Amino acid sequence: MKLQTAQIQVPENFIDLGRGDPAFNLLPLEMLHSAAHNRLRDSDNSFLQYGTEKGDGYFRTAFANFLSKKYNFAVDIESLFITSGISAGLDLLCTLFTKPNDTIFVEEPSYFLALKIFADHGLKVASIRTDEHGLVIDDLILKLKSVKPKFVYVIPTFQNPAGRTLTQERREQLISLAKEHDFLIFADEVYQFLNYTQEPPNSLASFHSEHVISLGSFSKILAPGLRLGWLQTHESLMQKISSAGVLDSGGGMNPFTSTIVRHVIESGNLEKNLASLKQTFTKRIKVMDECLRKYIPSAEFYTPHGGYFFWVRIPNVDMTELREKAKTHHVGLRQGLLFSSNDSLKDYMRLSISFYDEGQLEEGIVRLKKCLE
Amino acid sequence: MKLQTAQIQVPENFIDLGRGDPAFNLLPLEMLHSAAHNRLRDSDNSFLQYGTEKGDGYFRTAFANFLSKKYNFAVDIESLFITSGISAGLDLLCTLFTKPNDTIFVEEPSYFLALKIFADHGLKVASIRTDEHGLVIDDLILKLKSVKPKFVYVIPTFQNPAGRTLTQERREQLISLAKEHDFLIFADEVYQFLNYTQEPPNSLASFHSEHVISLGSFSKILAPGLRLGWLQTHESLMQKISSAGVLDSGGGMNPFTSTIVRHVIESGNLEKNLASLKQTFTKRIKVMDECLRKYIPSAEFYTPHGGYFFWVRIPNVDMTELREKAKTHHVGLRQGLLFSSNDSLKDYMRLSISFYDEGQLEEGIVRLKKCLE
Repeated sequence: MKLQTAQIQVPENFIDLGRGDPAFNLLPLEMLHSAAHNRLRDSDNSFLQYGTEKGDGYFRTAFANFLSKKYNFAVDIESLFITSGISAGLDLLCTLFTKPNDTIFVEEPSYFLALKIFADHGLKVASIRTDEHGLVIDDLILKLKSVKPKFVYVIPTFQNPAGRTLTQERREQLISLAKEHDFLIFADEVYQFLNYTQEPPNSLASFHSEHVISLGSFSKILAPGLRLGWLQTHESLMQKISSAGVLDSGGGMNPFTSTIVRHVIESGNLEKNLASLKQTFTKRIKVMDECLRKYIPSAEFYTPHGGYFFWVRIPNVDMTELREKAKTHHVGLRQGLLFSSNDSLKDYMRLSISFYDEGQLEEGIVRLKKCLE
Repeated sequence: MKLQTAQIQVPENFIDLGRGDPAFNLLPLEMLHSAAHNRLRDSDNSFLQYGTEKGDGYFRTAFANFLSKKYNFAVDIESLFITSGISAGLDLLCTLFTKPNDTIFVEEPSYFLALKIFADHGLKVASIRTDEHGLVIDDLILKLKSVKPKFVYVIPTFQNPAGRTLTQERREQLISLAKEHDFLIFADEVYQFLNYTQEPPNSLASFHSEHVISLGSFSKILAPGLRLGWLQTHESLMQKISSAGVLDSGGGMNPFTSTIVRHVIESGNLEKNLASLKQTFTKRIKVMDECLRKYIPSAEFYTPHGGYFFWVRIPNVDMTELREKAKTHHVGLRQGLLFSSNDSLKDYMRLSISFYDEGQLEEGIVRLKKCLE
């Protein structure tokens, strides 16, 4: 009997262009096998013990070096806290920094599964408009007049689902508003390293602000099943985070996996894997872009410079209905409504390049085209 | 430079009899190395993907078989949900089933680090008396007259810190009260398999009750750094747990580690490791028992039949003061006050057999004796 391992199950011959998980052939099993083999044959077994709260010192050192090379600033290992993924990180932050009925702000559109985490914590969500440069600061200022949010959740770079990147100028404005109005910024920077053209603006962690917590993950640069991520923040916030009860009791969030991934980093394989992913995704972006133009000329969209997603509008098409109809054509999408906090964006859909190769992407778009006819 | 990996750091030549983590030489690195090597050389890499919410089907199948052999009932794989440890499990349950200012009941004494998790969720804690048979049901009935708790947190078997086990009769009474008064029971059964004499009463999961969530962990039977545990419950509660936002977004809690540990289970090594731990701890219990009687005749205690802990009372000794004084004698303990929800138990201390070998345990007790003189 075939049992379930992976989260998403799609029928055979179905092309679900909506799914945002990486293809199985992009998950580097051999690299992890070799790292595990090399690391676990050492005599030091201290990573099998309850781990230090912020995460293994050697892992954080190796990773701080990696980050310092990627970012345009030196990353202090004490600013890093190892999570078991961004979702677990956000969940911890909600427990520590919010209580039910607190208001928070999110982008419109935003990552719909983060919204579910916020709902589990009883938070009230208000949405802030976005445009081609990301979060609209004027709208944020307007909303701040009536309510002070506990935090603003943003995906500043290659946003999910819109693919847009917050400009440097707006980043500065956001930070300065956070200081003025005393709210936190939870920056989900999961696509930061997946740029296919020029470098995006630096991580929000670069501001070294007491109002910013930057969250990153190995899910998009190595493998989601590792459940390994990090957050980077100012020491004033770190103190509260690292003394959470769940860490006091269980120790650091993922010591065993960290120590294996440390070998992936130190051997240079993380950098290699990232380069290979970027090469693959660059090609897929090109194909998706061409196919959308060729087969669905009514589609309005922006060609993303990084990340996974095309955010596609087809005027006057209800995407929730299209998704249902598309199933009969064996193709999937994610309707815009899912990403909305105010029941709108109905003629948008999110398409992803993460799971399917160029040929499948083209076939998927052809099926969508037929569906639209 | 030596960086920190493990959570607890103790100065050299210091014997901290209070620490409740396993000795480094009991952490089976070779067993995990071999499991990782065997498992990761397979071609199937699906465990590197976002994992199914309840945990990998093959892992849960292997583990349900293991549990079915240990317990006196057949464990259904659908009743199992894989966590990243009991602490993470409790944290998730608090998010899903409570809101700040809800009252919960705990045993007096109870595991002090769980109390910190509950505090992070803003819960109000009321304590229920315990005696040599565990939770005192009459006291629970009395407290239920004035307040309905959201849940009762119990460590039914080889309790931390008291070492006592809830009798079968009281288990039945507890379950029946939970039904009558509609509260949940979070049963932390982390020491269930560490019995050194007869088998303890069956896991509370054996009641198949809609009011019980049984939590277990690989921390005490394999290694804490794995961050792997499970919870077992009725389908009515499972539905809510497995549809938490944090799982929808991040997938199952620890797919990578699960798949490695699956090999440890299937190869029979988990059973072997457990047998070896029980042998080691049985000897240590005997030594600790003898040393306490020999060197500290004023100590009042119960010789535990399982788990890690001796709960020792020395009448009229303030253990908080003793702990401070003991530091100058290079020996540690955990004062009873830590485990109290109502600022009492001041002349109790918790001593553990988990970290030190027989010789060190004796030396530690000798140092304590000097301290008491």
